[in-house]
Amino acid sequence: MKPISALLTLSFLPVFFSSQQLLAQQTSAQTSQTSAIDKRYTDEVKAIAEQPAVKKAFQIFIDLEPQTKQDHITLTEIPSPPFKEAARAKKYAAMMKEAGADSVWIDDVNNVIAKRKGRSGKKTVVVESHLDTVFPEGTDVKIKQKGDTLYAPGIGDDTRGLTAILAVLKGMEKASIETDADVLFVGAVGEEGLGDLRGVKHLLRKGGLKVDSYIAVDGDGISSIVHRGLGSHRYRVTFKGPGGHSYGSFGIVNPHSAAGKAIYYFTTEADKATRQGVKTTYSVSVIGGGTSVNAIPYESWMEIDMRSESPDKLNEVDQLLQAAVQRALKEENGLKRQGPDLTVDVKKIGDRPSGKTDITAPIVQRAIAVTKYMKAEPQLDVASTNANTPIALGIPAITIGSGGIGGGEHALNEWWLNDKGYLGMQRILLVLLTEAGLDKGTGGSGVKR
Amino acid sequence: MKPISALLTLSFLPVFFSSQQLLAQQTSAQTSQTSAIDKRYTDEVKAIAEQPAVKKAFQIFIDLEPQTKQDHITLTEIPSPPFKEAARAKKYAAMMKEAGADSVWIDDVNNVIAKRKGRSGKKTVVVESHLDTVFPEGTDVKIKQKGDTLYAPGIGDDTRGLTAILAVLKGMEKASIETDADVLFVGAVGEEGLGDLRGVKHLLRKGGLKVDSYIAVDGDGISSIVHRGLGSHRYRVTFKGPGGHSYGSFGIVNPHSAAGKAIYYFTTEADKATRQGVKTTYSVSVIGGGTSVNAIPYESWMEIDMRSESPDKLNEVDQLLQAAVQRALKEENGLKRQGPDLTVDVKKIGDRPSGKTDITAPIVQRAIAVTKYMKAEPQLDVASTNANTPIALGIPAITIGSGGIGGGEHALNEWWLNDKGYLGMQRILLVLLTEAGLDKGTGGSGVKR
Repeated sequence: MKPISALLTLSFLPVFFSSQQLLAQQTSAQTSQTSAIDKRYTDEVKAIAEQPAVKKAFQIFIDLEPQTKQDHITLTEIPSPPFKEAARAKKYAAMMKEAGADSVWIDDVNNVIAKRKGRSGKKTVVVESHLDTVFPEGTDVKIKQKGDTLYAPGIGDDTRGLTAILAVLKGMEKASIETDADVLFVGAVGEEGLGDLRGVKHLLRKGGLKVDSYIAVDGDGISSIVHRGLGSHRYRVTFKGPGGHSYGSFGIVNPHSAAGKAIYYFTTEADKATRQGVKTTYSVSVIGGGTSVNAIPYESWMEIDMRSESPDKLNEVDQLLQAAVQRALKEENGLKRQGPDLTVDVKKIGDRPSGKTDITAPIVQRAIAVTKYMKAEPQLDVASTNANTPIALGIPAITIGSGGIGGGEHALNEWWLNDKGYLGMQRILLVLLTEAGLDKGTGGSGVKR
Repeated sequence: MKPISALLTLSFLPVFFSSQQLLAQQTSAQTSQTSAIDKRYTDEVKAIAEQPAVKKAFQIFIDLEPQTKQDHITLTEIPSPPFKEAARAKKYAAMMKEAGADSVWIDDVNNVIAKRKGRSGKKTVVVESHLDTVFPEGTDVKIKQKGDTLYAPGIGDDTRGLTAILAVLKGMEKASIETDADVLFVGAVGEEGLGDLRGVKHLLRKGGLKVDSYIAVDGDGISSIVHRGLGSHRYRVTFKGPGGHSYGSFGIVNPHSAAGKAIYYFTTEADKATRQGVKTTYSVSVIGGGTSVNAIPYESWMEIDMRSESPDKLNEVDQLLQAAVQRALKEENGLKRQGPDLTVDVKKIGDRPSGKTDITAPIVQRAIAVTKYMKAEPQLDVASTNANTPIALGIPAITIGSGGIGGGEHALNEWWLNDKGYLGMQRILLVLLTEAGLDKGTGGSGVKR
């Protein structure tokens, strides 16, 4: 998860709406919903939190801190670049097995799945963090500690998440907490960038796991509740021509000229289309092509990102890009004085579904109730996380933080500080137990699973 | 020299003019001028070529072939990347000294200058080839021989030229040929690409050498006579903004959007401006910028090349670029929704003057007469070579070939074949002697220099 600066907190809501009318409407609606949180969730959370076994688990998280730190360091120092998560997956699976999961397996794409059986097993709740980092092979991932702060690429995003849910499993085992639903602790591949949520897409594919509730753990702190998936489309557009000497071959098609036209048409129209309504963004982010200043290039490529919470708005901007590319292609071919036509390849390199889990859904209500129980301020966020996929499939899903504080995500100086990090595990456990159901066997009084 | 495919030969002239009227006019003018070559030049060439000492030199070039081949290999295998010609310069200076030059020095920019004094020394004639290749450091420059063909990066362009003028000096020494003018044999740095003719610009700078006649040796064969300098301007344009997250920072300026607009405005206007008149070209050749598909880039850069034989036309296209860049900057800043303005840096990275040595100038007439004397077909060419600089300064200048045949210039599989390569040295010597004046002391009968 890359934190986005625009947080949908109760007070920051205005950031998202350019229309005053929409703003007023949404703000009041959200405020009343939040303050009018159904009392049964507040009661439910309190009842679970005050069970002796749960209190015991809370203390275990604190007692386990030195071991949790060691797990965090071990995992962080196993590089896990995009599409190359295998080594970290293997170690993580072993840790999950050691922690007491009933069964652990690594699937075809290197997701780690650790199953902890519930009493009835009628439902399945997923608690997941992602194995991949944004950092390429060869990045130095050795931890550097300065004071109490740990520095390393990927230390927070999302290795802290992996460590936190591993600790939750350990706490549940040691405190003999039983759930009604099966719980799957998952280390997922491919959350970042071009990974394009491939791990979770594989988990939840047709014929894959049947999941009733999905809790992704990503980002720090204990306030954020991402319940809206920010959808995105990403493209790599490549114009190709024969290329040649800038003087001798003059008059052949120039791929950069076509790319320039496409950027001009796309950004001009997309600017107009995004000035009203739900926040929708577009960015021509990376461009390249050409070998020498005295040569007409044989190719010009650009990578484009577009995002919206609204699938319709996202598709509208997508169509503007497609139209701009085809118009530029046609016009550049119309100007050529010699040689073959320009061609274009439009490749979709990212497709993250948008959508939301309604604020009235039990999973969101429970997360709010848990957050308030822990005396933190709930932040209802929109982001692009692994929760996007279950949300788009209609599975109740949220993304919550892993505790502590951190920064520098996606940068080499990424850091994480264990400022009462155990609160992260406590919060994850409570949200999980409200969703999975605390069984009567909890505390060792029931039938052995 | 990178040969350009459009050669201005007598028969190929139509390539250069899109207007039928201009075509007819220029073709006839050129044909009559060439056929009406002043008889005194034909006579002059014949008289010089039949001097016993000159005939002796002609035979010496043939006898020296094994040593010339060895010199060619030695020089080719000393890497000479742009801006890093020092090692080759040092060796070339030693070879020039060994060959019998009166004095040899390496100037501030690593040009090698070997002076051979003339009887009067009232005038100075330069014979020059360039030391630099286009190939970066680390390129394998080891010669590979297949049959009679030598393969190596830079073997033709312009290491053959360096070898040829070294052989010319040796032949003049061994045949005791005396000239009236001083002759400077020069190995020049910085002819290629971003070198931007810096070696010759330095030689002929204000306060530099006083030169009356300039013969550049570049390219193969014995037909080409480049008497027109193809001018070029080259720019690196960089738009800069703060950069940020594609969603969280949306609304800040996007440098790629500005670059796209600039390319659109520039190429649309330049297309119109170059459809009439003297051939004038433009190319957006290399583009780049951006770090990740989910980030608004902090910079966008592009390298642009424009060329014309006409300084006016070149300036016209240059102005279109400047206007397009400023318009794009203004418009992109006008669209921003937050954050600081975009800035732009327009850096001139190349400036090769255009111009021509008139076809009636003695140096061109003499080169035509020499070429015909050698039973080759003169090709009057336009190109961007080291002769551009003296031409722009009003110094009579041409570029002629070094003999043999070659290909693959600027490519790793560059090759050169010694197909009567000695004819190249014979031709260079004759053109040089017509310009420098053959002194009565020639053949050892005169006063020792």
